[in-house]
Amino acid sequence: MDKQTENGMEDTPLFDPKILDLIDFSKCNGEYKPKISNKNPGDNLHLRPLSLGDFDRGFLKLLSELTKVGDVSQKQFADRFHQMKACPGGYFITVLENTETQEVVATATLAVETKFIHSTGARGRIEDVVVSKQYRGKQLGKLLLDCLTLLAPKVGCYKLSLECKDPLVDFYSTFGFSKEVNQNYMVQRFWD
Amino acid sequence: MDKQTENGMEDTPLFDPKILDLIDFSKCNGEYKPKISNKNPGDNLHLRPLSLGDFDRGFLKLLSELTKVGDVSQKQFADRFHQMKACPGGYFITVLENTETQEVVATATLAVETKFIHSTGARGRIEDVVVSKQYRGKQLGKLLLDCLTLLAPKVGCYKLSLECKDPLVDFYSTFGFSKEVNQNYMVQRFWD
Repeated sequence: MDKQTENGMEDTPLFDPKILDLIDFSKCNGEYKPKISNKNPGDNLHLRPLSLGDFDRGFLKLLSELTKVGDVSQKQFADRFHQMKACPGGYFITVLENTETQEVVATATLAVETKFIHSTGARGRIEDVVVSKQYRGKQLGKLLLDCLTLLAPKVGCYKLSLECKDPLVDFYSTFGFSKEVNQNYMVQRFWD
Repeated sequence: MDKQTENGMEDTPLFDPKILDLIDFSKCNGEYKPKISNKNPGDNLHLRPLSLGDFDRGFLKLLSELTKVGDVSQKQFADRFHQMKACPGGYFITVLENTETQEVVATATLAVETKFIHSTGARGRIEDVVVSKQYRGKQLGKLLLDCLTLLAPKVGCYKLSLECKDPLVDFYSTFGFSKEVNQNYMVQRFWD
């Protein structure tokens, strides 16, 4: 049910929280010490879809630990949020909130591109994974990655990919990702 | 204006054809011999958005020259089409039609993922580029690539990427793409 944010905006989730129930964490290959899961991510932590109220819970500040965010107003945030929400099955931005401090402390995105090939299939991409500095070392990045990797086929992805820097290749290998022979990632940038 | 397809379906474009007018082909770096452009792609050829009626114009057969398509019914095609269309600014699937034979002979996709980072920016991806066998050697793949590369920043993409096999690295370099140091593309497949 929608609740009100501090600023009186409706606190709408980006996608139906029930979709996260499709994650069968018993199928997860990774080992956790101490044991955490999507349902029990740790003390005061709650795993859920990004919500409109996360503007007030430090979501953009969190992203700025990953890359350039820029000056994004509440209206710009809300407009982008609603644009994503209008795209059904397209954006599974998932966050971990510390419910005591009401801060978003980690996030990862499963972005889904629908296609006509592969029997009107879809391909997923892991994007924008970040854990707030003071929450690192608590297996939260791993937890988000396991969750989104388990979720991807449940929402129709026949394949899932990501790009990462050299030191992270081993980390992502543990979730089933590999570098393929004869596959090259090429990019061009128009602005920062 | 919408027109009727053979089967009486409205021939809706996937995106507003005016968006293709944002392409300033004079900014294109590539040389064409003979000279073709987005406005004049060659005899009887017309560059336009994918449309709902392209189910009857061999669009899926064309894609099957690229990869596995599977058995996609007209309803499945239409459902996927409308799902993409509901996602504003998300899917710029562009085709070349031979207006004489009413066949779709080439296609390329600019898929756009909107983000909160980079001042609520967007990143584009080139996907599913294919030219029908009997139309190869007519610079049509190059034309589609130039068009979508010029379009990407116009629709808000701060960066544009693609994945390709080894023999195509040189080809894509000519459009401004490059392999970046310390960037790895990793993938996992759940089914074919």
